[in-house]
Amino acid sequence: METRAKRVNELWITEEQSDHMKLSLRITDVLLNKKSEYQDILLVETHEYGRMLILDGAIQITERDEFCYSEMMAHVALCSHPDPKRVLIVGGGDGGVLREVLRHKNIEKATLIDIDEDVINASKKFLPTINVALNDPRADVRNMDAMKFVKESKDEFDVAIVDSTDPVEFAAGLFQAPFYNDVKNALKKDGMLVAQTESPFTDTHVVQGAWRQMKSVFPEVRMYWGAMPTYPSGMWTYTIGTKETDPSVPVRPEPDGTKYYTSEIHKASFVLPPFVVELLK
Amino acid sequence: METRAKRVNELWITEEQSDHMKLSLRITDVLLNKKSEYQDILLVETHEYGRMLILDGAIQITERDEFCYSEMMAHVALCSHPDPKRVLIVGGGDGGVLREVLRHKNIEKATLIDIDEDVINASKKFLPTINVALNDPRADVRNMDAMKFVKESKDEFDVAIVDSTDPVEFAAGLFQAPFYNDVKNALKKDGMLVAQTESPFTDTHVVQGAWRQMKSVFPEVRMYWGAMPTYPSGMWTYTIGTKETDPSVPVRPEPDGTKYYTSEIHKASFVLPPFVVELLK
Repeated sequence: METRAKRVNELWITEEQSDHMKLSLRITDVLLNKKSEYQDILLVETHEYGRMLILDGAIQITERDEFCYSEMMAHVALCSHPDPKRVLIVGGGDGGVLREVLRHKNIEKATLIDIDEDVINASKKFLPTINVALNDPRADVRNMDAMKFVKESKDEFDVAIVDSTDPVEFAAGLFQAPFYNDVKNALKKDGMLVAQTESPFTDTHVVQGAWRQMKSVFPEVRMYWGAMPTYPSGMWTYTIGTKETDPSVPVRPEPDGTKYYTSEIHKASFVLPPFVVELLK
Repeated sequence: METRAKRVNELWITEEQSDHMKLSLRITDVLLNKKSEYQDILLVETHEYGRMLILDGAIQITERDEFCYSEMMAHVALCSHPDPKRVLIVGGGDGGVLREVLRHKNIEKATLIDIDEDVINASKKFLPTINVALNDPRADVRNMDAMKFVKESKDEFDVAIVDSTDPVEFAAGLFQAPFYNDVKNALKKDGMLVAQTESPFTDTHVVQGAWRQMKSVFPEVRMYWGAMPTYPSGMWTYTIGTKETDPSVPVRPEPDGTKYYTSEIHKASFVLPPFVVELLK
């Protein structure tokens, strides 16, 4: 009698990147699967990308590739601002961007406002390489609505980093002019706002929308980009609005220990392929 | 009686990027599905990326994003070589790289050697935006084993572009020193070899292997990178070996009509993130 080959248990997490594309990763375990007040939280152990956080079906962060994103979110503004001391992070409850921000010794205080306490707690429990700064004495971590917090802040921050989920439901307002305007008011006069603005392949309308909305608020708006493997298309954009500083010129070297960002990468990341320039017209 | 919602036919193509990751695209039709002498050829119409060519399960080219790859394969060498006139393309039967090569008016002849006539014919029949140069009078398209062809060529080419499939089966030798050495001999004294060398996330060993093998043959070897959405991880490397020219400095402007490549992108693409530099040590 023929015997069939031994099989293994197949456990996969699938992200629908759009109605027509999906990325699937084999996982070994589900570590957390809960519905918070705001979103579905899933934390899994993947074979290839380490632990991965998924919110409402969208991959947020993996242990293996988050450095690409976290470093580009933090260092471009922090290395081009003349003298950053106070940083605001909107979202980013996992702590990856905060970890990068606090690599800068000149930062006195980083305020992280994530609406969802369960995300912060999930990171604290399951993401040891990402959560390292959540208990740093320079970190001021709060659970509240960032839109409300920002509205009440004036002339307070040097750099604001909007590390939001995709622009749906409660996060949609984070890609709009009224919010950008509140952030502008919360920034000091040489302040800068950075936001993740999705993929020029998969989310063309988000890239364009965020660009236009930010342009309507900040005197100078620039876009830069980088690789981000587990995000749709792997090509990710970041948009930066400033009051007076040119964000494309680093004025200090990268902090120790970066794996993606350097001063040279900083400058290179502002060079946009013509098809992206075309999107912004 | 409750009626169920109308359903649609679901037709998907799935690429196993590794044992643990897969990318799936919804398709509307299968245009070609055949086994050639060398590989399984599949040509499908996708919802988001236009027509797509898949060989032995690996996505080769899509109408929507191939410009990222084709332009970076062709223009970096052709814009940094002092005076390129004769180009060799190994593989690339779809014609995408050839189309970009022949945008350069100084090119007198481009010889394309693809082992698989069926790939060329598939492109001629189904990929009108990609196949445009396959019948160009400056194109010399041949079906034969490129390894044999290269071995018999001496001092003939200014630039050789290795547009191969992944390094498995008949294409594996295209990532090895003996082949690189034959290419070196087929090049004129200021000649350059460019090869696609896969993803630093997904194919670490290929990136490293090709780098070392090329280093053992060419006096100067450099790596550059770019975005390529439908390839694993979306971050793609290209390795360039030269006899005497510095490939990172463009000496002429980009040809008209590029959507990814510019002289500024050229320079930026040689800036490697530290984690890639680390791989090459």
